[in-house]
Amino acid sequence: MGRKTAPQDLTHSRTVRVFVEGGVAGQEVRLGVEEVRHLFRVLRLRAGARVTGFDGEGREYSGVLSVLDAHAGRLHITQVVTVPPPELPEICLAPALIRPDAFAWIIQKATELGADRLLPLVADHCSRTDARDASPCRRMRWERIARESLKQCGRNHRLQIAEPVSSRELLGNPPGGEAWLCHPAEAEPLLADAAEGQRPMRVIVAVGPEGGWSEDEVSIARSAGFRPVHLGQYVLRAETGALAALSLVMSRWRWR
Amino acid sequence: MGRKTAPQDLTHSRTVRVFVEGGVAGQEVRLGVEEVRHLFRVLRLRAGARVTGFDGEGREYSGVLSVLDAHAGRLHITQVVTVPPPELPEICLAPALIRPDAFAWIIQKATELGADRLLPLVADHCSRTDARDASPCRRMRWERIARESLKQCGRNHRLQIAEPVSSRELLGNPPGGEAWLCHPAEAEPLLADAAEGQRPMRVIVAVGPEGGWSEDEVSIARSAGFRPVHLGQYVLRAETGALAALSLVMSRWRWR
Repeated sequence: MGRKTAPQDLTHSRTVRVFVEGGVAGQEVRLGVEEVRHLFRVLRLRAGARVTGFDGEGREYSGVLSVLDAHAGRLHITQVVTVPPPELPEICLAPALIRPDAFAWIIQKATELGADRLLPLVADHCSRTDARDASPCRRMRWERIARESLKQCGRNHRLQIAEPVSSRELLGNPPGGEAWLCHPAEAEPLLADAAEGQRPMRVIVAVGPEGGWSEDEVSIARSAGFRPVHLGQYVLRAETGALAALSLVMSRWRWR
Repeated sequence: MGRKTAPQDLTHSRTVRVFVEGGVAGQEVRLGVEEVRHLFRVLRLRAGARVTGFDGEGREYSGVLSVLDAHAGRLHITQVVTVPPPELPEICLAPALIRPDAFAWIIQKATELGADRLLPLVADHCSRTDARDASPCRRMRWERIARESLKQCGRNHRLQIAEPVSSRELLGNPPGGEAWLCHPAEAEPLLADAAEGQRPMRVIVAVGPEGGWSEDEVSIARSAGFRPVHLGQYVLRAETGALAALSLVMSRWRWR
């Protein structure tokens, strides 16, 4: 799927992408433990293999693995290319915190589909368990999933995952641009009223938890300029709604 | 998420939907083992509770649980309402057979999003393990997932899951209507050329396995009238592509 400018069979090409912290041409950089394990054990590469590094900030590093065994790996960088960031608008997905596996899944898919920012929300109807786990483990898991997904889907700019905030805070103060609130009760479908020709700096889509938004949240969001929209006639799971909404927004603003 | 004509808080309403084989007003019908377990153990209902039955063929049964314990349940039907089928076009998703968990996930989400038919494809680049398991267990698992999802999302017409066929067979003989082949190398995004105003009888979206379509498949599909389209610039996992494509098609043809 995806990538019209790439070679036709990028999905089955052998381009190996490896995450690196950064570097310049001529330099050797050390690879992380996860990367070494993946290259050596899963892909069974050995020193001498050509791979493409990326740092998630828009730089691609062509290079050769100068060292690779079970314990360590080093990439000799031969060339650095800066990939331009995606065109405006910035696409932000603001999903409520739901059960960890479904939320991890949202992160994986949002990365693939090309969201720029993920804004996790502590919503009125979030379960306490889902909303209150603020452990570093959760954060690290999110970052790892996003990084793995970035590697696989060919993106060069990472998904920026914000710290969770209260839904009331975000819904009451949208950071400018188009702001949509996915809400079953609305009469207009998402994108029905996306003005052709306009080009906002930013698009935000907020998607509630399984229990939906509270009346307060809907009212706060409306007052602050969020436009409530629906996603069809059926009751979607929270993660399905997030992905359906994001697919539409991406197709409207980014696909060429 | 979803359902604009429903009460505002359908997502947190207490409407309990239960699958029944069929029946008429005044009749008592026996509930299946799965349903009894769910009503009694998970939802902790007891005899006397009001529930809504549905048969997946468009009939809704209002009724009261006349019997419910750990072993058996019976629904006394008080009213039968026939729900009209979704408006044309019929929406068909034709995903290649991929690993079981991801495919199950496609079935779950395709049900929620509202696809009418699922046409599993044995594609050239399917893994043999994924494609060759034609056991009754797999079929039963698919049906169970679709039924559970139907119950949750409020649909009254089931997702019809066809028997898997060779991709070459389907791609070479599309059953009429709009036919799209999701293919990374294409220059046009999905829906870019969906003619406004036209209303086909049927829309089919075919999505390949992780390895993509073979050159033969693309050529067969093109000759038979499939229009190759892309889904953005990144390499999507097969299940992400299926869901993104379906979201777009549903929003175009079904959301009002």
